[in-house]
Amino acid sequence: MSSVSHFADRLYAAIERTGSPVVVGLDPRLESLPASLLATCRQIHGATVSAAAAALWQFNRAIIDAVHDLVPAVKPQLAFYERYGVEGLRAFVNTVHYARQAGLLVIADGKRNDIGPVAASYADAFLGTPVVFAEEVPGDFAVDALTVNAYLGSDGIQPFVECAQRHGTGLFVLVKTSNPSSGEVQDLLVDRRPLYEYLGELVNRWGQDCRGACGYSAVGAVVGATYPEQGKRLRALMPHAFFLVPGYGAQGATAADVVGCFDAQGQGALVNASRSILFAYRTSPYAERYGEAGYAAAARAATQRMLEDIQQALRP
Amino acid sequence: MSSVSHFADRLYAAIERTGSPVVVGLDPRLESLPASLLATCRQIHGATVSAAAAALWQFNRAIIDAVHDLVPAVKPQLAFYERYGVEGLRAFVNTVHYARQAGLLVIADGKRNDIGPVAASYADAFLGTPVVFAEEVPGDFAVDALTVNAYLGSDGIQPFVECAQRHGTGLFVLVKTSNPSSGEVQDLLVDRRPLYEYLGELVNRWGQDCRGACGYSAVGAVVGATYPEQGKRLRALMPHAFFLVPGYGAQGATAADVVGCFDAQGQGALVNASRSILFAYRTSPYAERYGEAGYAAAARAATQRMLEDIQQALRP
Repeated sequence: MSSVSHFADRLYAAIERTGSPVVVGLDPRLESLPASLLATCRQIHGATVSAAAAALWQFNRAIIDAVHDLVPAVKPQLAFYERYGVEGLRAFVNTVHYARQAGLLVIADGKRNDIGPVAASYADAFLGTPVVFAEEVPGDFAVDALTVNAYLGSDGIQPFVECAQRHGTGLFVLVKTSNPSSGEVQDLLVDRRPLYEYLGELVNRWGQDCRGACGYSAVGAVVGATYPEQGKRLRALMPHAFFLVPGYGAQGATAADVVGCFDAQGQGALVNASRSILFAYRTSPYAERYGEAGYAAAARAATQRMLEDIQQALRP
Repeated sequence: MSSVSHFADRLYAAIERTGSPVVVGLDPRLESLPASLLATCRQIHGATVSAAAAALWQFNRAIIDAVHDLVPAVKPQLAFYERYGVEGLRAFVNTVHYARQAGLLVIADGKRNDIGPVAASYADAFLGTPVVFAEEVPGDFAVDALTVNAYLGSDGIQPFVECAQRHGTGLFVLVKTSNPSSGEVQDLLVDRRPLYEYLGELVNRWGQDCRGACGYSAVGAVVGATYPEQGKRLRALMPHAFFLVPGYGAQGATAADVVGCFDAQGQGALVNASRSILFAYRTSPYAERYGEAGYAAAARAATQRMLEDIQQALRP
């Protein structure tokens, strides 16, 4: 995977190098892509999934070119590729390879989950290598880390943890998600404490033997920026878990909202933004300044703006 | 999708037609496939993911040929295909098409989950049709139903429900899973009741406006056969939800254990078996009778045995 063999150490070093605890979510909704790019793909492929896949891949490549020196990682959302079937997933594979060649870590946002041997198969795909006739072969979907859902308990998570330890990869377990109805299940009171705190303790336990030299574990947590008080509390509960923090930007959370997800040294969290960066070219002030043709430059400018925003909020 | 436009009605009719509330789980673990089949694929493709994909597809085709008149549906487990990347997913696509041509309903076991527009993308892929340039195009992954995980609450489930209603497809929400550690999260007490009961009530609510002519809803539930008492209680709590019941066979549950997942008329549940059918040829008495070359006939015999077992347990 890399010369540094522990995912948390790679992520920590990449954040230090770039000065940027920010991950760009590669969520290329076809309907929001630049019209000229869509027109070109339509001309070549017609109204087909091949056209959609070509558009996703070309868009992602331009975004990666524009932001690769600014951020440590990208986070493709698998649903936007699966939507277009096998061709869509080929766009995902191309994106992953291109991002890694550009020196970026890749976190696949797949929220995968299942029991024992099935979870191990997902782990092989994303966090390890498929084995064919007792030989390890290169896997299309190999990334640095994967998001996972823990509703099935320990024996649904351990296969991911074991695979991550063997291969120097990582996982982020859903604890408190950023969406409006996340509380419907996650905030239910168990022994007078919300369920997400209980999940946080499980994450702690699953990750306790997976700490890297940086002090953080290969088992991280997804904690939505839209719930800042809960984020603070979870930071205290999970001192060794890297937080992957969605919700900044288009979902409404501000830089001030994410501060509590970092540790006292301003480390240990990675804030995601997707729409507010990818589609900056559609919104003010970027639309006026860059226009549709300048969508990649607009994404770069929006990333820089977000970085400054978060760096300023983290300043002591 | 079919001449009958409601998923629960299609499933109900297919169970009536076959007399068989059984679904064959297409979980082709490469390492358990017949050695001669693997050898052929290796000879052609070497130790590559293409060899793995070819083996999965050929194995599935033989299994479908052997059981298609005995059961209403098959349930491919996506993890076993994703494991081998894009080629593996092509084996999944081939399997889905072949099964539907053979008149079987297909339930994709993917346990997908995400928030609003992301969940809608998964729904497009599996339960609807991808839209490219405002045109609906054929989707590789279109199936009759998908398993989903509800840890993210209503706004992670509604997009699946809406898509299912538009397209006559269905979903099965994880409520109580069959694995040993399922209780770690699912049995936590919320207001002195286990969390899975609370999830059961949510499933009821999500599915209340989606009932077909048969009385059952397009929103079903996954309820593990390994927890029979909980199954009975959940049957009472979710009178209109079809139950997808894993855990019979290799996971240890018996026919007596699944009875409580059915309604008083012996309807409303679909019992899954995977390993105990697919790999019957490796176990007694099938190994002796059919040998490795007869793996498909062994799968047919094991399916018939399971059917009789369950039909007998359901007899008043």
